[in-house]
Amino acid sequence: MKKLVLAYSGGLDTSYCAKYLSQDEGFEVHAVSVNTGGFSKAEIEEIEKKALALGATTYTSINAINTFYDKVVKYLIFGNVLRNNTYPLSVSAERIVQAIEIVNHAKKVGAKYIAHGSTGAGNDQVRFDMIFQILAPDIEIITPIRDKKLAREVEIEYLQKNGIDYSWEKAKYSINRGLWGTSVGGSETLTSNLSLPENAFPSQLEKELPKELKLTFSKGELVAVDGEKDTPVSNIEKLAEIASKYAIGRDIHVGDTIIGIKGRVGFEAAAPLIIIKAHHLLEKHTLSKWQQFQKEQLGNFYGMLLHEGNYLDEVMRNIEAFLTDTQKHVSGDVYLTLHPYRFELNGISSEHDLMNASFGSYGEMNKGWTADDAKGFIKILSNSGKIANHVNQDHD
Amino acid sequence: MKKLVLAYSGGLDTSYCAKYLSQDEGFEVHAVSVNTGGFSKAEIEEIEKKALALGATTYTSINAINTFYDKVVKYLIFGNVLRNNTYPLSVSAERIVQAIEIVNHAKKVGAKYIAHGSTGAGNDQVRFDMIFQILAPDIEIITPIRDKKLAREVEIEYLQKNGIDYSWEKAKYSINRGLWGTSVGGSETLTSNLSLPENAFPSQLEKELPKELKLTFSKGELVAVDGEKDTPVSNIEKLAEIASKYAIGRDIHVGDTIIGIKGRVGFEAAAPLIIIKAHHLLEKHTLSKWQQFQKEQLGNFYGMLLHEGNYLDEVMRNIEAFLTDTQKHVSGDVYLTLHPYRFELNGISSEHDLMNASFGSYGEMNKGWTADDAKGFIKILSNSGKIANHVNQDHD
Amino acid sequence: MKKLVLAYSGGLDTSYCAKYLSQDEGFEVHAVSVNTGGFSKAEIEEIEKKALALGATTYTSINAINTFYDKVVKYLIFGNVLRNNTYPLSVSAERIVQAIEIVNHAKKVGAKYIAHGSTGAGNDQVRFDMIFQILAPDIEIITPIRDKKLAREVEIEYLQKNGIDYSWEKAKYSINRGLWGTSVGGSETLTSNLSLPENAFPSQLEKELPKELKLTFSKGELVAVDGEKDTPVSNIEKLAEIASKYAIGRDIHVGDTIIGIKGRVGFEAAAPLIIIKAHHLLEKHTLSKWQQFQKEQLGNFYGMLLHEGNYLDEVMRNIEAFLTDTQKHVSGDVYLTLHPYRFELNGISSEHDLMNASFGSYGEMNKGWTADDAKGFIKILSNSGKIANHVNQDHD
Amino acid sequence: MKKLVLAYSGGLDTSYCAKYLSQDEGFEVHAVSVNTGGFSKAEIEEIEKKALALGATTYTSINAINTFYDKVVKYLIFGNVLRNNTYPLSVSAERIVQAIEIVNHAKKVGAKYIAHGSTGAGNDQVRFDMIFQILAPDIEIITPIRDKKLAREVEIEYLQKNGIDYSWEKAKYSINRGLWGTSVGGSETLTSNLSLPENAFPSQLEKELPKELKLTFSKGELVAVDGEKDTPVSNIEKLAEIASKYAIGRDIHVGDTIIGIKGRVGFEAAAPLIIIKAHHLLEKHTLSKWQQFQKEQLGNFYGMLLHEGNYLDEVMRNIEAFLTDTQKHVSGDVYLTLHPYRFELNGISSEHDLMNASFGSYGEMNKGWTADDAKGFIKILSNSGKIANHVNQDHD
Repeated sequence: MKKLVLAYSGGLDTSYCAKYLSQDEGFEVHAVSVNTGGFSKAEIEEIEKKALALGATTYTSINAINTFYDKVVKYLIFGNVLRNNTYPLSVSAERIVQAIEIVNHAKKVGAKYIAHGSTGAGNDQVRFDMIFQILAPDIEIITPIRDKKLAREVEIEYLQKNGIDYSWEKAKYSINRGLWGTSVGGSETLTSNLSLPENAFPSQLEKELPKELKLTFSKGELVAVDGEKDTPVSNIEKLAEIASKYAIGRDIHVGDTIIGIKGRVGFEAAAPLIIIKAHHLLEKHTLSKWQQFQKEQLGNFYGMLLHEGNYLDEVMRNIEAFLTDTQKHVSGDVYLTLHPYRFELNGISSEHDLMNASFGSYGEMNKGWTADDAKGFIKILSNSGKIANHVNQDHD
Repeated sequence: MKKLVLAYSGGLDTSYCAKYLSQDEGFEVHAVSVNTGGFSKAEIEEIEKKALALGATTYTSINAINTFYDKVVKYLIFGNVLRNNTYPLSVSAERIVQAIEIVNHAKKVGAKYIAHGSTGAGNDQVRFDMIFQILAPDIEIITPIRDKKLAREVEIEYLQKNGIDYSWEKAKYSINRGLWGTSVGGSETLTSNLSLPENAFPSQLEKELPKELKLTFSKGELVAVDGEKDTPVSNIEKLAEIASKYAIGRDIHVGDTIIGIKGRVGFEAAAPLIIIKAHHLLEKHTLSKWQQFQKEQLGNFYGMLLHEGNYLDEVMRNIEAFLTDTQKHVSGDVYLTLHPYRFELNGISSEHDLMNASFGSYGEMNKGWTADDAKGFIKILSNSGKIANHVNQDHD
Repeated sequence: MKKLVLAYSGGLDTSYCAKYLSQDEGFEVHAVSVNTGGFSKAEIEEIEKKALALGATTYTSINAINTFYDKVVKYLIFGNVLRNNTYPLSVSAERIVQAIEIVNHAKKVGAKYIAHGSTGAGNDQVRFDMIFQILAPDIEIITPIRDKKLAREVEIEYLQKNGIDYSWEKAKYSINRGLWGTSVGGSETLTSNLSLPENAFPSQLEKELPKELKLTFSKGELVAVDGEKDTPVSNIEKLAEIASKYAIGRDIHVGDTIIGIKGRVGFEAAAPLIIIKAHHLLEKHTLSKWQQFQKEQLGNFYGMLLHEGNYLDEVMRNIEAFLTDTQKHVSGDVYLTLHPYRFELNGISSEHDLMNASFGSYGEMNKGWTADDAKGFIKILSNSGKIANHVNQDHD
Repeated sequence: MKKLVLAYSGGLDTSYCAKYLSQDEGFEVHAVSVNTGGFSKAEIEEIEKKALALGATTYTSINAINTFYDKVVKYLIFGNVLRNNTYPLSVSAERIVQAIEIVNHAKKVGAKYIAHGSTGAGNDQVRFDMIFQILAPDIEIITPIRDKKLAREVEIEYLQKNGIDYSWEKAKYSINRGLWGTSVGGSETLTSNLSLPENAFPSQLEKELPKELKLTFSKGELVAVDGEKDTPVSNIEKLAEIASKYAIGRDIHVGDTIIGIKGRVGFEAAAPLIIIKAHHLLEKHTLSKWQQFQKEQLGNFYGMLLHEGNYLDEVMRNIEAFLTDTQKHVSGDVYLTLHPYRFELNGISSEHDLMNASFGSYGEMNKGWTADDAKGFIKILSNSGKIANHVNQDHD
């Protein structure tokens, strides 16, 4: 029988796939969901039950949170990556790891087919297909939703006809939750001018009083929240829980999809935004000007390629080596205050802080150099401009 | 007599210079202040009175707000320039224009000397000296404060001895105000860990109720606020007035000074931050992916060189030509909401909006291409990765 | 009748298209060839005769040499563009202009179809199709060679059966000639290790004695060869004639095709290589360090997008504005010597030369600054490193 | 007694320093020369004799060839670094390693002073001083030549008066030889228009007949010449010996000095140029497009900072980590032919060659994808341009 691994989320589209592929197309369907932080244990059990009811031969839940952190999230922090200065790449980043886990699973069970529920108009199809094709060129990719362009009603009717009686009422907002943030799509994000209403976001404002917080980084990784040490993954989850009560980290990303159209998506990503901004502040104190300059250039580029599903290009490994090397001294505490809908960075303390009083302070006279040194510095710094002005002023 | 132009601000350091240079050093002192948005008419009159009382032969106030906008601010908006993703370069930007105006004035009055009050430990000395030396290599630069490293008390004593009886009590926070924002220095900014208290900032929270606002851009310039057309300069001033009542745009910049030490400075820049973020959002809708990519790279670089006083390098003109060319379609309305301490961008409308429904929407199936087109696209996009994986997997 | 414009070169593939489309598919075929420097008058007449004999209703030869220079070649010189530091993008650059001319012609004659002879494995199909689709989304693109994957023999047999008796013997090397160089493909270029033999190249070594030459540039454009003024296009042609007798400018380009595979192509481009290297030398004397730095970054990028057919992206216009602005002072004479297979740049003279003796010479003591200035300069330049070393040495 | 380490080359300037500092200034002079490939054993013995005769207490010759390769040359190859696309940074690269060795020696012998013979008008003073100051801020730097601006004649007279009778006739061309090439300065390099005569170069053309050569790289390092395995350093030396007989690798570099003036210097660097070009060709076959793109950007930047003496900036370590990571698959053979004054790259063979026939060849139809795949690819690639053209054509 034709073995097929189906990327299964429990939603209508992949449920349709499960039924359709197992029953009408004669596949032996092995449903898989890859948890990158979005699913609770209860949800996974629910998904499993559904998958099997729909005709899947097996169901596997792969816990990939640590892989997700190690392979992707860590570097997004090292690189302070915010796509278009805004979006922490929540979904883009997850898809990469999910695709890798799925293709590994398919190889393990010896499947010759992988199916997923992406449409033909988004980024996810590209991220999935590229990784499947590169890592397993012999596995055929099956995408009924993309191929058949079925309307929701048709899918529901099909499932009902086939005895599947779940309720598939469309949520007003489509939500994708994960370790690195939650994306939110709705009718507003299909326009250019409307913002999302409060209730579109999964977290709601629960706290009003400012709360001070200390984040501790070691070589760029978040190793403690308020002095309590834990793994970076646990710290991200803990911070998300604290900060989402302040409704922090909401925004709308407007970006260029891989297929060339503009897309708009809301998101809520309290922990990612706080961590990136805190980490960035620590870097301002501990890295040289040129390190920061090159990190910004390469971080942007890394984010672009990740967003576009180009994670397997070797240049990504090279940039990760660069980023890792920049983090040698990015250790210390960052102080911040949470407020409703926003946070403030108050300062840092680090034994690698280059703002070091013993070398003189900005704007205050000091012992490191004399006025004459400064004048000599500026004189010679002016040489090239002086020459250019002299040479060209008569000839313009 | 030795004609000297003194960059005069009315503060203790330059007042000392005025007296010292005219009386002890025998210069004919022509005091000048260049207004880039920081001085009211009353303040200018006060400065003039002081300058003349201190021994200046003439005093001139140069209104350079429009020059400031045309030569610098405009490009900071076009380039969405925030130094280290944070600081709108308020002071750095002003110094450039002030220096150019002063050197032009010195040439006009035939001065052979220019004096300024910078110390030897900051950025301003570099910005001033570089521009003076490049544009007027024959004019000698005189900097008593840098050379003599006088303490405040010594300066005050000198002035009192010489019959100058102004009160020179040191403000707790040193403030530099201008069209493109206000910088705030204090004892906290000399540390790495302390933030500025509320009262350090010139504007205080006065409004609590959210306020909706519409900013209209034409080819990248702010041409109207809430539908009311005016010059970009007036619009910036108007927006500053509205938004500063919400205490928006406060932060602390940690940066690398030109002389190699780290510096930290608070700032309040409601209008710059709102304008840059609104302008950036409009660009996300109207520019191609590669335009945004290159703008980010070049905008960062432009900000770095401007910050470092390298404004006269010809590459700055070249980048300005680039930036101007990118703005051809950056026209439209941006909708936002002001809240206490923050603002939200709600969306835009523009006839150049590339998020154009007639070409299909993100994530929704569409008429522009088929599932097979998408599959072909991804297949070929995967070629290089497929080959690399095939070639290298056996040899690693 | 269905009006179709056929990009016609006179070769076997497009000849097949002409016959097949007019006779079997019922199109009214309007054959067009766009001359970007590759065709002589006699060749064009020959092509015309063939086209009409094959069933074309009309034939039009479009002379696009000046357009080619104005729209593309000029910027390749301004940007010193050599793909992978090697290839002047001879063919890539031509295709862009040919595509634009063809689509304009199709609009003029009211054609609803454009046909071209590209296969499905190269860059040209992408360059052509992209420009056609962007500029004329309503025109359908017809590509029999790509679609039917016909072998040469099949095409020849078809033409013979239909009474077309030209001889189609396959040249050992496929040659593409144009103003900006000639590409050469052969069995060797399909390998990684073999180089092209002498006789594969269109020009052969005819001169042995070194020849001195002076190229004069004005704002980056080649305005005279050995003091004789002419248009840039004529100067390029004249230089090509002189230098090709020295067999200069041959090499093999190994590059990444748009479709993700590596490709290898020989080329002979005496004039482009001499002009770019001479122009680059003049820039080393007349541009600032940062201008050269940014030109290199942007020039590489411009070449990449041009190579990939992305000419119509607005960022290309923006970079052209940048490049044009950099050329303000790139005027002067460049002296060089031609030798068999190579050339030497001897030096330049320019009134904009920034290597200006009046400011002191490299390595020689001078009057522009003192030893103390230099020491002050270096001391302050060392600040950041000194601090970093001090701060981090104890903590590593 | 005041212990001083003198960077001693055996030339007039540093000989003057040796005598003057030991006799007139009362220093205990410890002369050191650091061999980065320029000195033969005989020359070193000659230098030692001189140093001691001039009053040095000790003389030490430090062999730093391997350090030079490991710390700098290796990365210049990995990065294909040619300053301004021309100059392999021969001298700049050596100075860095020499400075580090000297400062280490000074620390070892407990010297409180370091002296060198640089003038105040060149790059070397900056490279030396920066590294000395950063690594040993407590050591004072002594530079008599820079400080006293002595003419040659004055130095000679001083030495003769003090009984030193070496002949100091000025060579017509000043030569600096090292592992990574030889620089040549002369009266011509002080002009903009004159080239160096044949006899200015240390090597002369000795061979006329073309010679084929095979270079073998392993992870970016040159591990064999013509199949003979040896260390990279020995291979560089061997290649230099072979290729310099063909007078390959001569050129003139025009560059921006650290002190802002333009400088011009001749060089002969047969091995560096051949190695870099051969290595680059191997990379074109084994790296992805984006790896090459980023390597070019970062390689240029690395070369700029190295040239400017900024070797100790941490960003250099980060870029080295990046470059090292890119070399994982840069292994294989490169075939080339040496000719008088030039060389040709013929091709490569590598098991990591991405130009892999099994995936289809450039321009030839293939089995990896169909015509429809290609059309789908191009259609979707055109989306953004199609939209932009549609949206903006009516509004321009």
